[in-house]
Amino acid sequence: MAGMNMRDSTRPRQAAAEIKTILGRRFMVGQAARDHHSRDESWHEPAMPEAVCQVESVSEVSQVVSICHRYRIPVIPFGAGSGCEGGVIATSGGFAIDLAQMNRILEVNNEDADCRVQAGVTRQQLNRYLRDSGLFFPVDPGAEATFGGMAATRASGTNAVRYGTMRENVLSLTAVMADGSVIRTGQRARKSSAGYDLTRLLIGSEGTLGIIVELVLRLCGRPEAIAAAMVSFPDVDTAVHSAIQTIQCGIPVARVELINAAQMHAINRYSKTSYPEQASLIMEFQGSALAVEEQARTVAEICRDAGGSDFRWSANEDERRQLWHARHMAAYASMAMRPNSKALSTDVCVPISRLAECIRQTQADLDRNCDLPTFILGHVGDGNFHCVMLIDPESAAERSQAAGISERLSARAIAMDGTCTGEHGIGIGKREYLEQEFGIEAIAVMRAIKSALDPQHIMNPGKVLLPCAPHG
Amino acid sequence: MAGMNMRDSTRPRQAAAEIKTILGRRFMVGQAARDHHSRDESWHEPAMPEAVCQVESVSEVSQVVSICHRYRIPVIPFGAGSGCEGGVIATSGGFAIDLAQMNRILEVNNEDADCRVQAGVTRQQLNRYLRDSGLFFPVDPGAEATFGGMAATRASGTNAVRYGTMRENVLSLTAVMADGSVIRTGQRARKSSAGYDLTRLLIGSEGTLGIIVELVLRLCGRPEAIAAAMVSFPDVDTAVHSAIQTIQCGIPVARVELINAAQMHAINRYSKTSYPEQASLIMEFQGSALAVEEQARTVAEICRDAGGSDFRWSANEDERRQLWHARHMAAYASMAMRPNSKALSTDVCVPISRLAECIRQTQADLDRNCDLPTFILGHVGDGNFHCVMLIDPESAAERSQAAGISERLSARAIAMDGTCTGEHGIGIGKREYLEQEFGIEAIAVMRAIKSALDPQHIMNPGKVLLPCAPHG
Repeated sequence: MAGMNMRDSTRPRQAAAEIKTILGRRFMVGQAARDHHSRDESWHEPAMPEAVCQVESVSEVSQVVSICHRYRIPVIPFGAGSGCEGGVIATSGGFAIDLAQMNRILEVNNEDADCRVQAGVTRQQLNRYLRDSGLFFPVDPGAEATFGGMAATRASGTNAVRYGTMRENVLSLTAVMADGSVIRTGQRARKSSAGYDLTRLLIGSEGTLGIIVELVLRLCGRPEAIAAAMVSFPDVDTAVHSAIQTIQCGIPVARVELINAAQMHAINRYSKTSYPEQASLIMEFQGSALAVEEQARTVAEICRDAGGSDFRWSANEDERRQLWHARHMAAYASMAMRPNSKALSTDVCVPISRLAECIRQTQADLDRNCDLPTFILGHVGDGNFHCVMLIDPESAAERSQAAGISERLSARAIAMDGTCTGEHGIGIGKREYLEQEFGIEAIAVMRAIKSALDPQHIMNPGKVLLPCAPHG
Repeated sequence: MAGMNMRDSTRPRQAAAEIKTILGRRFMVGQAARDHHSRDESWHEPAMPEAVCQVESVSEVSQVVSICHRYRIPVIPFGAGSGCEGGVIATSGGFAIDLAQMNRILEVNNEDADCRVQAGVTRQQLNRYLRDSGLFFPVDPGAEATFGGMAATRASGTNAVRYGTMRENVLSLTAVMADGSVIRTGQRARKSSAGYDLTRLLIGSEGTLGIIVELVLRLCGRPEAIAAAMVSFPDVDTAVHSAIQTIQCGIPVARVELINAAQMHAINRYSKTSYPEQASLIMEFQGSALAVEEQARTVAEICRDAGGSDFRWSANEDERRQLWHARHMAAYASMAMRPNSKALSTDVCVPISRLAECIRQTQADLDRNCDLPTFILGHVGDGNFHCVMLIDPESAAERSQAAGISERLSARAIAMDGTCTGEHGIGIGKREYLEQEFGIEAIAVMRAIKSALDPQHIMNPGKVLLPCAPHG
C-alpha cells in the first residue's frame, strides 16, 4: 500500500469498475451529475468529483467506502447540497456518495417520542409524515436539508434557543467508517453513561470521520398553543437588547429572530409581504394557552419599554406559517436582490452579553469597508447572527471585500469568547479560524482523532482541518 | 522508550522524585492517603495507588501528567470518590491525581447564565455560591460529587428529564491530555458548529482520554414558582404507568422519581420521615405560578385515573427541600438498613415504553433469585432506574447473587434498545456489557480513539474498555 502512487490514474478506474458492479447505473460519471455534486449553496468555488455514487442502502455505502478505502479514493458524502461552507465540494477529487435516495422513515415510536430515519430524509419530509402524530422534529435550518447533512454540520435554526441543535436532538447514529465498517453509536435510551460519545463526535464532523447513514432522532410533543409575534424597533441595537432581556428574564421563548431593515425589505419583495421595513424581532411562544398568553404579555412589555412599537401577535396558524415561511426564505430573498450574485454569509455566535456590541462593531465595519448589498439577521436568542453579503462571484475585488468583513467578524467573535460558526460548519470556509478558536493543542487532538479513524485521509479530505503533514 | 521494562521499579521512584520537587508534601505516599484513594462508594474491591498527587492548579496537573507520561506511570483522576462503578480504583497501580483542592469558582457570568469552575468544585458548593443570583446549576446526582467527576461519568440525577445531563449542561472544558498538553475544547457560545466535539468526547470518558481540570457550565434561571408533589400507588407498575403518561402528555415536569415500598421504608427510617410506605412518585413542577398549578392539576388527574391515592403537593420551600433531601439520601438510607454492607446498584435506562416491562421482569427475577435486601428507585421520566442490593462484601455467594441480577438486568435493558448505564458510567463494573450494547465495530472505534490520544495507556487504564492487545 505504502508504495502505491497517489497519482496513479488506474486506481480510480479500478475502483469505478468494482463499484459499477454494485451500483450499476447509479454509478454516474456524466458531466451533469458531477456538476450537480460540485457545489453547495455557498459562494465557494465548485469542484467536481470524478464520479457520483447514488447509494440506496447502508450496505451499499459500506461496500463503496470499502472499495474506495482499498484504492485510496476520497469519498464525499452529499445530501441536499444546501450547505453554506463548501463541505461537499470535491476539492481533492474523489467520488461523491449521494445519500438523497436513502430517504425512508424507518420507524416512529410514538410512545417514546423518537424515530429512526435514513440520512437522506429531509426535515420537512419527516414533519409532514408526523403531522397527525402530535409530534414534530424541532431543528429547522432554512433549507430543505437532509438529516445526514444537518447532523454532519451540527446544524440548528430558529428553534435552537428552546429545543437545542442537532447535538441535543440526535439519540444515536449509524455510520460507515473509513474502512467500510458500520457502527451504531448507541441505542434509544434518553440518556446513557456508556462509553465514548461517538454520536456527538460524528455530529459536526462533516463527513471527515465517517458517513452518517441512519439517525435516531428525538421528537417533541406539539405544544397545545403556539403564537407568533413581531415587533418593530428604531434600530438593530434596541431590537437586540429586547431579545437579550427576554432571554435573561427566563421567558421560555421558542424562537427569537432578528431581521434588519434591509433584510425585511428583501423579504417583502421576495415573499410579497408588507411587513414594516424596520429592524424587527420575530418571536414564537409555545405551551399551554395560558402560558403562551403570559409569555407574550411579558415580552410585549419588555419590547415596549425598550422602544419597540407595533407589537403584533397572532395565534392564527396561517398567519404564523406565513411569517415563518418568509423568515425561512430570507436567504433566498436576499439573493434575489441581486440576480446572479452569490451570498457570503457569516455565522458567528457569541455569549449573549456581547451580542449587541458584536453586531454594532460589525455594522461599523460594514459602513466603513463594504459597499455590497448586506443583510443582517440571526437567531439572537442563542447569540448567533448572520451577516449576508451579495457578491459577484467573478469579481475578485468583491470577494476580497466580503472575505475581509468575514475574517474580521470571526476574529471579533472569537475574541468575545464566541465561535466563528454557530450552525453552518467549518467546511473549507472557516478552517483558518479553527486554531484561533481552539488553540493548537486542541487542534492536535482533532488531528490525532482524524488520523486514527481515517489513516488514509479519504473521508471528505481537506474539510474542517487544514491539510498538513500526516500527524506524527 | 520501547526498550523500557514495564516492571522496572525505578520508574515510579524517579517519577516520584520529580513530582516531589513540584508538589512537595502534596505528593503523598502514606498508607492513609493511599487507602482513601483506593475506593469509591461502590461494592468494587479497593486497590491502592502507589502515591497521591494533591494538585492545586492546571499547570501542576500538566506537569505531573507529563512526568508520568515520560515514565509510563498510570494516572487516575480523583474527585470526591463518590463514584458507583470503581472508576477511581487503582487497579493497575499508578498515581492518583486528587483534584479536590482545585475548588475555585473562577467566574460567574450572570448575563450569559454560565460560569467557569475548577474540576474540584462540587455542585452544592456552586449552588450555595449562586444562591442570590437567581441562577442555579441543575444536574444533581445524590452525592456531593465534584464537577470533574460528574463530567467524567456523564452524570445526571433527578432533574435530567427537564434539564438534561452533564452532556447538555457543559459548554466547554479544559483538560490535560496524556502527554501533559492542556486543551480548551471550546469557548462560551451557546452553540457552535466548529470542529470536532471534544467537549462531549471527554464527557463520559472517565479519565481515560484526558483529565478534566476546568469546566464552563450552563446555568439556569430559577423558576418563579416550584411545587413538589408525592403520590402513593398500589404497586410499582401503576406508579410507572402514571409517570410514563405524564411524560407522554408533554407535561414539562422537572422531576419524576419512582420509589418502591422498601425504599420508602428505608428513607423513613434514615431521614426520620413518615411518608406512606408504598410505591410512590415524587414530582416537581416549575415555571410561573400559573403554569405550576396547571401542571400539578393535570398530573394529579393522571395519577388518580391510574389508581394513585393521596396526591399531596406543596409549594412550601421547607417541605419541598425536606422531600428532595430525603430522596437524595436514598442510597445512604438503603445502606443503613444493613450495617457494614455494600450496595450494588444497577443503573439501566430504557425507552420509556419499555420501562414498566423492564421493572416488572426485574422484580420477577429478584423474587425468584435474590434474598438480599433490595430497593428500587429511579428517574423514571428518563426511563432510568436503580435496583439496589445490599451485599456482605465478604460473601462470595451474595456478591455472585447480586452480580447475576445485575448481569441479567443489563442484558434485558440492552435487548430493549436501552443502555446498561444511564448515569453511573462504565468504570470497571460494566465493561463486559459495552460490546453487547454497541457492537464490536463501535468498540473498535473507541479503542482507536483511546490509542490515538493515550498511546501508552497511562490514563486511568483498565476503565471503560476491557484491556486488550494494543489496537492494530
